[in-house]
Amino acid sequence: MSPHTNERSVHNDNDVTLSLSGLALHSEAGAPHLGSNYRASNGRKSKKSILTDSYLKTHSGNSFHETDRPLRPGIYAPTPAFFDPETEDLDLPTIRSHSVRLVKAGIVGLVTQGSNGEAVHLSQSERRAVTAATRGALDDAGFGNVPVIVGCGAQSTRESIELCHDAMLSGGDYAMVLPPAYYRALYNGESQYEFFSDIARESPIPILIYNYPGAVAGIDLDSDTITKLSKHPNIVGCKLTCGNTGKLARVANAAPSGFMTMGGSSDFTLQSLIAGGKGVIGGLANIAPKACAEVFNLYVEGRNEEAEKMQAVVARGDWGAIKGGVVGTKSCLQTYFGYGGFGRRPLPRPTPAQEAVYKEDFEELLLLEEFLENGCRGSDIHSDRIKEFSQLVELEHMLV
Amino acid sequence: MSPHTNERSVHNDNDVTLSLSGLALHSEAGAPHLGSNYRASNGRKSKKSILTDSYLKTHSGNSFHETDRPLRPGIYAPTPAFFDPETEDLDLPTIRSHSVRLVKAGIVGLVTQGSNGEAVHLSQSERRAVTAATRGALDDAGFGNVPVIVGCGAQSTRESIELCHDAMLSGGDYAMVLPPAYYRALYNGESQYEFFSDIARESPIPILIYNYPGAVAGIDLDSDTITKLSKHPNIVGCKLTCGNTGKLARVANAAPSGFMTMGGSSDFTLQSLIAGGKGVIGGLANIAPKACAEVFNLYVEGRNEEAEKMQAVVARGDWGAIKGGVVGTKSCLQTYFGYGGFGRRPLPRPTPAQEAVYKEDFEELLLLEEFLENGCRGSDIHSDRIKEFSQLVELEHMLV
Amino acid sequence: MSPHTNERSVHNDNDVTLSLSGLALHSEAGAPHLGSNYRASNGRKSKKSILTDSYLKTHSGNSFHETDRPLRPGIYAPTPAFFDPETEDLDLPTIRSHSVRLVKAGIVGLVTQGSNGEAVHLSQSERRAVTAATRGALDDAGFGNVPVIVGCGAQSTRESIELCHDAMLSGGDYAMVLPPAYYRALYNGESQYEFFSDIARESPIPILIYNYPGAVAGIDLDSDTITKLSKHPNIVGCKLTCGNTGKLARVANAAPSGFMTMGGSSDFTLQSLIAGGKGVIGGLANIAPKACAEVFNLYVEGRNEEAEKMQAVVARGDWGAIKGGVVGTKSCLQTYFGYGGFGRRPLPRPTPAQEAVYKEDFEELLLLEEFLENGCRGSDIHSDRIKEFSQLVELEHMLV
Amino acid sequence: MSPHTNERSVHNDNDVTLSLSGLALHSEAGAPHLGSNYRASNGRKSKKSILTDSYLKTHSGNSFHETDRPLRPGIYAPTPAFFDPETEDLDLPTIRSHSVRLVKAGIVGLVTQGSNGEAVHLSQSERRAVTAATRGALDDAGFGNVPVIVGCGAQSTRESIELCHDAMLSGGDYAMVLPPAYYRALYNGESQYEFFSDIARESPIPILIYNYPGAVAGIDLDSDTITKLSKHPNIVGCKLTCGNTGKLARVANAAPSGFMTMGGSSDFTLQSLIAGGKGVIGGLANIAPKACAEVFNLYVEGRNEEAEKMQAVVARGDWGAIKGGVVGTKSCLQTYFGYGGFGRRPLPRPTPAQEAVYKEDFEELLLLEEFLENGCRGSDIHSDRIKEFSQLVELEHMLV
Repeated sequence: MSPHTNERSVHNDNDVTLSLSGLALHSEAGAPHLGSNYRASNGRKSKKSILTDSYLKTHSGNSFHETDRPLRPGIYAPTPAFFDPETEDLDLPTIRSHSVRLVKAGIVGLVTQGSNGEAVHLSQSERRAVTAATRGALDDAGFGNVPVIVGCGAQSTRESIELCHDAMLSGGDYAMVLPPAYYRALYNGESQYEFFSDIARESPIPILIYNYPGAVAGIDLDSDTITKLSKHPNIVGCKLTCGNTGKLARVANAAPSGFMTMGGSSDFTLQSLIAGGKGVIGGLANIAPKACAEVFNLYVEGRNEEAEKMQAVVARGDWGAIKGGVVGTKSCLQTYFGYGGFGRRPLPRPTPAQEAVYKEDFEELLLLEEFLENGCRGSDIHSDRIKEFSQLVELEHMLV
Repeated sequence: MSPHTNERSVHNDNDVTLSLSGLALHSEAGAPHLGSNYRASNGRKSKKSILTDSYLKTHSGNSFHETDRPLRPGIYAPTPAFFDPETEDLDLPTIRSHSVRLVKAGIVGLVTQGSNGEAVHLSQSERRAVTAATRGALDDAGFGNVPVIVGCGAQSTRESIELCHDAMLSGGDYAMVLPPAYYRALYNGESQYEFFSDIARESPIPILIYNYPGAVAGIDLDSDTITKLSKHPNIVGCKLTCGNTGKLARVANAAPSGFMTMGGSSDFTLQSLIAGGKGVIGGLANIAPKACAEVFNLYVEGRNEEAEKMQAVVARGDWGAIKGGVVGTKSCLQTYFGYGGFGRRPLPRPTPAQEAVYKEDFEELLLLEEFLENGCRGSDIHSDRIKEFSQLVELEHMLV
Repeated sequence: MSPHTNERSVHNDNDVTLSLSGLALHSEAGAPHLGSNYRASNGRKSKKSILTDSYLKTHSGNSFHETDRPLRPGIYAPTPAFFDPETEDLDLPTIRSHSVRLVKAGIVGLVTQGSNGEAVHLSQSERRAVTAATRGALDDAGFGNVPVIVGCGAQSTRESIELCHDAMLSGGDYAMVLPPAYYRALYNGESQYEFFSDIARESPIPILIYNYPGAVAGIDLDSDTITKLSKHPNIVGCKLTCGNTGKLARVANAAPSGFMTMGGSSDFTLQSLIAGGKGVIGGLANIAPKACAEVFNLYVEGRNEEAEKMQAVVARGDWGAIKGGVVGTKSCLQTYFGYGGFGRRPLPRPTPAQEAVYKEDFEELLLLEEFLENGCRGSDIHSDRIKEFSQLVELEHMLV
Repeated sequence: MSPHTNERSVHNDNDVTLSLSGLALHSEAGAPHLGSNYRASNGRKSKKSILTDSYLKTHSGNSFHETDRPLRPGIYAPTPAFFDPETEDLDLPTIRSHSVRLVKAGIVGLVTQGSNGEAVHLSQSERRAVTAATRGALDDAGFGNVPVIVGCGAQSTRESIELCHDAMLSGGDYAMVLPPAYYRALYNGESQYEFFSDIARESPIPILIYNYPGAVAGIDLDSDTITKLSKHPNIVGCKLTCGNTGKLARVANAAPSGFMTMGGSSDFTLQSLIAGGKGVIGGLANIAPKACAEVFNLYVEGRNEEAEKMQAVVARGDWGAIKGGVVGTKSCLQTYFGYGGFGRRPLPRPTPAQEAVYKEDFEELLLLEEFLENGCRGSDIHSDRIKEFSQLVELEHMLV
């Protein structure tokens, strides 16, 4: 395959870190960025990251917790909380094994108690159990350097701070905080700013802002607010699930240099990166971690043509994840990987017809994931099915 | 009109029960319905209540908890959770004294952990403490018959059921449940119905449906859903804070006879009653319990003209409570009664200018409340101020 | 004008006008308030209306248009614009005949180019044609005194004023104006106030404010704004389709005495009246004009028990009209009356299954309407079907 | 200041088409992509466009209007309708001169009667006048090849089709259509699809879909619907003002090859392009056409680093345009260019304080625009002010 050498020749030295436009990729163990069986990109030029500080920070020189696990640019997965299908009790073994699977596939950090993690369906003790199990599983599997971010949003500042303490004690490295919404009509123009800065001041671990209007009655933090908050030494990033990449561009360019501005869904990975973002926290990474990570990797390597084609496949697959949310994600995991179960009530359980739809929604993407895993088309069935997806065939030819 | 003789025999004594159009008023101690100093309504016609069953039910003949404290038609107050202004810790003594004050003024039941009660700002143990304190205060003050309803909404069916158990163990008689909203995009057409019926099936105490779209991202249960749920033997009422009195009319006329269809704000008390409702759960009752209760009483007594004029004053006062929510309610209590404090962060604390606005918003109503308390204008200042409110003067002349 | 003191002697003289709580009912030809065949309310006392000013104003003594057709308290119908089912051209003969049918049944005024009138689907010349046809039909049928209100809302102040002029030239007496919404993010706190007062200042006919958040992206004028506007000499009323009867109470009690505060749907007729409203503009009056009007009439006569039962039937029927809007209304008219047709595209045309649902939604109400028309159950089929509706049977027994 | 005339000679070399990742740039007269005074990008590699068909279509081989003015990839401006500040009458001379200014600066097409064009504030005859003036001005200035797109959305299919005819007769090449929203509660799942396909079938000119939830009560067409519509031979593009670039990626990759998937705001230009989009229709191009166009041009040339830095400046400037909408845009034009005036009522007129805010919001961007125009810092004042903007200084150094 012919590299886009002409476009990228700017970046010509020979460090282990590749970089483009402020993004860095470390080819460390634990973050394999390419399927093992396709041609390694040896010989491509690389240079010292201009963003290495984002690895080393977070905000050194202040009195806050200095985590040993910095947030690296890349793809993060907000993991589901798995439950016993009969009792709805936590299924910690599955939570553990799923976490390890993702990190082995190239995911650079995990988020517990995000929207996929059914945070709002868990008791405080369950939250602690999930985070501790996740941390423990990573450590046991040799991924002690992979950070765990813990969803710590609550309606009151007080409870959110408590959750941050709980998160730290359970092994969490960062807290990701949703804005409160219940009393939205009573808040004034400063309430959200004060909420986050109060938490940042009192949290023992650094926090990320989680902007997801669809989950909080439409509350949508703007670039002015997020930028202002980004100056706080204990606020180190944000997840923009609003999908507003214009906002992302403004924040990314105005925030301190190590601030982790991240997209909130895998269907706009490239869009986040080209706007100055450092990565994505996207639920689709639970289903196709290699494909999600590979969009990032190809971009960082300057292989834009493949990146764009892979982004297209990922965006199509993400449409299923966006429509189905944690319900569709669990259905897909159950169908394709034999585990997943169901969300807690009142989340509905899909009918067989709905399961079939989810199966179909993710088929193309999982064929790609299988290709990235195995480097070739694994079976006749696969060979048969893949013909249905001409753009996927084209992409795989480019990658091989 | 033929009485529902069997159901009513409790209240057949010397005409203590007045009724109109299916509403009943007991002039019991603890629920004084008229300020003591103004003309008693002797000689007014009265009739047998057609709704006494609402006193005796709830849904006898089933296996559910048979509370000793039936829900009587009338005005209910969703009490605030008071906090120490420095530490934000619970201020249980104020919670106790406030509860007693309301019931003495004619409020027929209290709701803990409603929107005014900052349910979403409380830990589970704090929720228990508030409910137990409220129950205890009522018992100690001789109001053992006054029911306590406990807000038990949560995002998961599981947690909501747990809260119902907690509520019962803390002395709560009923659970009031908000619909979940976080995963609204994933729910199907039956999810809300199943949420409520699952909880009703497993809750040890009867439940009321709390329909308040403004608090739950716009989720608005329709009359079909509420009517269907009203058939469940352990669902005994609803609070419609949506303000849709057409819906209220449909529910009230289709639900089982003892079902407590209630309005959710004092500014539509008469509108709820004439549509078939049995009362109102309204935050304004924390500020002006006598005035709120009196709108109900006058209607039941058939004194429509006074009722409508009093409703107008109450509706004007309620505008302050609606705009200010728990923030304005606490500010008003602090200004006029010397207690109240502030909501937990991120609820803002009013500036002095905002406090002055809240003071003004509630002035007319509190002049009326004072009149109902004292039966005359208590002071020169009162005399001076009241001239500003011509409709209030007119109303007081009618009542004296 | 006579003082309010004797409002409750209500039914004490033998005038043609009955009144209660500020509402007046004229038993004029053209506004028959009772089906001819059931017991006349002879002997009930009546008196001069205390609201005669609302008949005579609108705001005499100013330079504005003095219409010969004052707005009387009662029920108004926003009439559909009927179209040829093939060409979608206006069907003016049906518009004419429908108008006359409603007024004969007791409707006291018509509204063209409301939401049921598909205002936003009509060209300016079509708007003029519909209004002129409506006015002409009423005049030709001897209802020269029945006013026509014309929907004149537009996104720009300029166009709205033009529509007011057009309305007057086409025979309209009043303009009903929706707030603009397209640039809602750009408006400031005064924009809506200025929009209405600018139009009021320049319109040749008096205007009514149409508050319908569901039609204008959620814009919901509050009681402060409407009350402030009600002081303008050329703003004479409002239609509150928001359903907020607390707001209605505040407006009705703060607006000038002749201001026509009206509910916006027939399912809260009584609720509007008891809150101080003067009537209702409701789409259901297109389907069951007698039943809608009779709720009003019974209330005015002080027959609350029957009023409440009839309100219940009307509210159930209105649920069909609310869900189906103009689509359901036209389907119902087609099914039960043989005319109606369809809305203009993109309004969908109901499938046969949907038509059957609409038929069922309105059945109870139309049995009542037939009863009010004929004074007895007209046919065996009717007799059979009516047994399905126990509350209707009960109501009819009360009325006979 | 150097004239615009020599901007065109730049790209008159042998390779007429530059391309990257499916985007093509034609160095035709009328589409200058670089300010004349900064370093030409000689020697950069280029290749034949893979998308040349997007120039040649639109959907050749069908019976629809074959415009002489194909839609080229690039930046489009939705022009304001200018008004006389006293009378609010159309100011056609300013509409003409503004149009020419934009096209001279590198804008590849104009949109009349978009949201910036106050379409909803114009009568049908005014709409025709604006489009005809725009077309005429372009022709007179030698830009006969620059297409004019005309906003043709309406609530009814019928009116929208009429507007399409009007647009063609006034010189419009394409119609851009917003989805209807007034009766949104009555539409079924197919209504929006049918609306667009009905219009496409009957419109004499090709249409583009305009997806802007903020303007139409939240109606947000999804990728499935837009993709399905993209197959229609007379639907040739879309403007996604929703900002959802994941959706944009899905549409761009599933639509026919010549379909013009475009972003709807200049703050996500690169994000649109990398997701497969062909350009942007963004209001900011009215203020800073060169800067907006240059983001596109730099990307197409593969100069990603400069592109990203310029995108950052543009995104910051766009925040002013997004917040201020047409009000802020006109204020900015008035302040910096001496024309602009005001929107029609009820759009508010900015206070002097607000004007100062808009001035500041756009300052950095307009310093960049001036630099692109003149190729150097033009004045001492400029030199002084530019120091405030360190990223701008850095960018200009890269470009010089």
